Amino acid sequence: MTVLATFGIADLRDAYARGELTPAEVAEQVIAAPSAPGVWISRVPAGALRARAREPLDPALPLYGVPFAVKDNIDVAGMPTTAACPAFAYTPARSAPVVERLLAAGAMLVGKTNLDQFATGLTGSRSPYGAVESVFGGGLIAGGSSSGSAVAVASGAVAFALGTDTAGSGRVPAALNGIVGLKPTRGLLSTAGVVPACRSLDCVSIFAVDVADARTVLDVARGPAAEDPWSRAATGESLPPAAVRLGVARPDVLDFEGDHGQAERYVAGCLTAARLTSAATQVDLTPLLEAGGLLYEGPWVAERLADLEDFLDAHAEAVLPLTLGILRGGRRFSAADTFRAQHRLQVLKAATARLFTAVDVLALPTVPTTFTLDEIAEEPLRRNAVLGRYTQFANLLDLAVVTVPNGTTPQGRPASLSLIGPAFAEGTLLGLAAAFRGETVAVPETPATTVELAVAGHHLRGEARNAELVALGGRFARTTRTEACYRLYRLPTGVPGLVRVGAGQGARIEVEIWRLPSGSVGALLSSVKPPLSIGYLSTVDGETVQGFLCEAYAAADAQDITASGGFRAHRQEEGQ
Amino acid sequence: MTVLATFGIADLRDAYARGELTPAEVAEQVIAAPSAPGVWISRVPAGALRARAREPLDPALPLYGVPFAVKDNIDVAGMPTTAACPAFAYTPARSAPVVERLLAAGAMLVGKTNLDQFATGLTGSRSPYGAVESVFGGGLIAGGSSSGSAVAVASGAVAFALGTDTAGSGRVPAALNGIVGLKPTRGLLSTAGVVPACRSLDCVSIFAVDVADARTVLDVARGPAAEDPWSRAATGESLPPAAVRLGVARPDVLDFEGDHGQAERYVAGCLTAARLTSAATQVDLTPLLEAGGLLYEGPWVAERLADLEDFLDAHAEAVLPLTLGILRGGRRFSAADTFRAQHRLQVLKAATARLFTAVDVLALPTVPTTFTLDEIAEEPLRRNAVLGRYTQFANLLDLAVVTVPNGTTPQGRPASLSLIGPAFAEGTLLGLAAAFRGETVAVPETPATTVELAVAGHHLRGEARNAELVALGGRFARTTRTEACYRLYRLPTGVPGLVRVGAGQGARIEVEIWRLPSGSVGALLSSVKPPLSIGYLSTVDGETVQGFLCEAYAAADAQDITASGGFRAHRQEEGQ
Repeated sequence: MTVLATFGIADLRDAYARGELTPAEVAEQVIAAPSAPGVWISRVPAGALRARAREPLDPALPLYGVPFAVKDNIDVAGMPTTAACPAFAYTPARSAPVVERLLAAGAMLVGKTNLDQFATGLTGSRSPYGAVESVFGGGLIAGGSSSGSAVAVASGAVAFALGTDTAGSGRVPAALNGIVGLKPTRGLLSTAGVVPACRSLDCVSIFAVDVADARTVLDVARGPAAEDPWSRAATGESLPPAAVRLGVARPDVLDFEGDHGQAERYVAGCLTAARLTSAATQVDLTPLLEAGGLLYEGPWVAERLADLEDFLDAHAEAVLPLTLGILRGGRRFSAADTFRAQHRLQVLKAATARLFTAVDVLALPTVPTTFTLDEIAEEPLRRNAVLGRYTQFANLLDLAVVTVPNGTTPQGRPASLSLIGPAFAEGTLLGLAAAFRGETVAVPETPATTVELAVAGHHLRGEARNAELVALGGRFARTTRTEACYRLYRLPTGVPGLVRVGAGQGARIEVEIWRLPSGSVGALLSSVKPPLSIGYLSTVDGETVQGFLCEAYAAADAQDITASGGFRAHRQEEGQ
Repeated sequence: MTVLATFGIADLRDAYARGELTPAEVAEQVIAAPSAPGVWISRVPAGALRARAREPLDPALPLYGVPFAVKDNIDVAGMPTTAACPAFAYTPARSAPVVERLLAAGAMLVGKTNLDQFATGLTGSRSPYGAVESVFGGGLIAGGSSSGSAVAVASGAVAFALGTDTAGSGRVPAALNGIVGLKPTRGLLSTAGVVPACRSLDCVSIFAVDVADARTVLDVARGPAAEDPWSRAATGESLPPAAVRLGVARPDVLDFEGDHGQAERYVAGCLTAARLTSAATQVDLTPLLEAGGLLYEGPWVAERLADLEDFLDAHAEAVLPLTLGILRGGRRFSAADTFRAQHRLQVLKAATARLFTAVDVLALPTVPTTFTLDEIAEEPLRRNAVLGRYTQFANLLDLAVVTVPNGTTPQGRPASLSLIGPAFAEGTLLGLAAAFRGETVAVPETPATTVELAVAGHHLRGEARNAELVALGGRFARTTRTEACYRLYRLPTGVPGLVRVGAGQGARIEVEIWRLPSGSVGALLSSVKPPLSIGYLSTVDGETVQGFLCEAYAAADAQDITASGGFRAHRQEEGQ
């Protein structure tokens, strides 16, 4: 039997496929492994786990035999949901839709993990089930609120885990345990069956050991759930790293609380990311930081009361005093205060939208610094707020974030970089995150929202209609040639056109490949006239890409410029 | 000099173009005309209006020499903005961007109109500048809050007017004065420079004598304004009336307060609309009515306090007691109440989104019944609430509405039909509204977001890939034939393909024309393989439409089925 140090999804699948390992053997490893203190609130009994591992599932399922954990504010049928408050616990009859999807994809549930009570906190120390220490040791906090899920993944107890993230609960613990944390766009993963913190902001998040695994889990778990009014369908395009315009923070607005090691790691991370991307710009974080302040100081704390108020009134003694105080603090806000804050947020959202017209991805530190459990105990509120400085604005501003490990400081503390984009930028963020981590594994593509399109005439760079291509969101990818079965003509209007002919009757014509949002293809077509069309071209590299074609009938009246090898060369020959 | 009974924009433009009238003459008519009581809060001085009328503007401007009015909660540079509360008045240095756009398009401002104080009310009787009577007389209320703007248009004092509409203030007075009221999608007209009622819900609305004029004003006034965080760019497609699936209310859920005349007019309006559309379905109004109740009974009244609270505290005596009581009622709601209501609204929004997957336009009465000023005085709050029953949900649910005159009751009271669609359905709504009103004038098209696409093979109705076309939002428009220069082939894969050949070498091939969202063309292309492409076809009607083509080189290996006249006929011949 192969013993894997950690259960990466791809490694597990490979070992299963080669017959070197079985889910039953992995289940035994999971059962036998020692547990880090405070990680679990409840475990799937050994017998049930063994039975699950022996179910005759299809090995082709994307999560076949992959062990995982679920934060204990997410429903699993038949197991108590505590939200780290025993008096609050209930046992749901149905699993949350995201859990159902993971199980249907073959994953093996190991147990439910500890959290800051009611997902309120970023430290991992606010739970009656015990404070959770980071896998980095030395008394370092695990971070919260999804403390148990992060440590379960980082310690190799499971391959991946679900957390939740309202103000940073899925990103801060990923940062403090050296793993990948994906906080998807609000509504991309259904929050049905999740104990609400702030319903309008809550996200289900994913912890994984690498970016490819996070993407695999996302692809399984994503998508609208019936009757979940917060569900949203994804929109938008996905950019390859080389096309990304990177934004980084101006140094003067960052505050690392004097932690020079974290500051250095941030700069190092930005330099690495800048080499992978097409441009890097320093941006003004003011609207993001102000929005973060609204969450922390403003009426959104009262959103937590919207669902919990009755429980708190009836069971105040059952709630941690620190948590009770925070939650009841929401009572000081009026409805008018709430609308005022929402109006201000609208201004900040507009400013953030402008920011994301200038950059595609913003790289920020995930946490300014790290704390030990003792340090948190000294100043539990202020230091909690410090931890959220670069995470708490994301859901208010409708952003998506992938948090990746970014080395360690000279003090041996983990550093982390957050790659932040607008709603539904997951494809772009995961692509850049994988490149940043040097992951070379082939990752499955999210459904294509961008197409490659070949142009051979007036849409080439420097030619008359190139600006239209750019205006429609097109980005230059590469120059290549067609297969040797095309002829290039110049129509009486001056417009060049590419016509496919029989094998051996044409030449290799120079084309540029552009990446274009799929939704813009129609607009591009509408901007040209017959006899041009958009169909498919074969390139010399053996690829088939979409591209401009010309109807063959029109060649009769046109000038054959095939011999020039391309429109640009033809223009040079003519001295145009 | 021609004297026009009312100033319709198209009539004015025609008269100007023919040289029968000048803006200066219209200005004199405007100055000389008697004013209905209570309509105006301030007027542009006669000298200033004459000067404006003599400015050397380009007669081609879309609102050249068109007199208009602005509700007095919208800023006009140099004129006081009162919101019908003299103590609140201020004189802005800059006009609201929507007003600037109208002026830049050549319109002539006549004055600022009366309203229910702070745009709070639907009766037109809550103003220190006087209660406003409908142009229908008999003591009938004008409706509010945009009472003065509606009467200014309906009485022929101006060609069009701006109002605002949070709960129905742009639709109720249109209904009660027999004119067209357009309440656009939130954010389509900028609310910068408007005294806020509920910032997150407020809309600028348009009053006009016909649908074409409303569209003309919309096209001028729409579009994002710099620094207005509530501005939104329009998205989506526009359907012709014949493609609209109409929804009407189940009779049992409607409550006309015993007004049988209004009930009869509603049914008559639905029957007319049904004849213009492709299908009519009775729908469940529950989510809409519940959302309306949230606005009326819930915390959104506190949104009015978000901006006004300090003024009310300092100047309570300056506010109408009824209005003061309503506004201060917002104080009873907490932040947690607000989030609870917003969470419930999210559920209702999702239900409404499902409703609008089954129908494109919902027809409802604008008001259940009408009231006289005396009747409102008897029960000012309850009867105000009755007036908003079928309007107050629209902005909470992010809907667009066009309100059109729908005849009069046997009692001589005006009836009105509201055509309601999802956000950015203005094009569809205005098209249906114009057809409903029998307007035959050519109205300018909003920018095309839908394309006509010809299909000749597997995408035909009843064929293998037709469902994909439907799933992408395609709708069948008509069957026609190509010009006689196409040949139809059946490729070795079985796929039919249309190839254009020289004139006289082809035949007229049967094609179906479908209407498709422009953004779906790329997805449609991605779903087929080479040698198919999407380009342009010429039809026997002399039109050029987009459509599927086949590259000519592929014809060499294909079966020529041109003689059948079309793929469907070919299949029948083959008995397939």
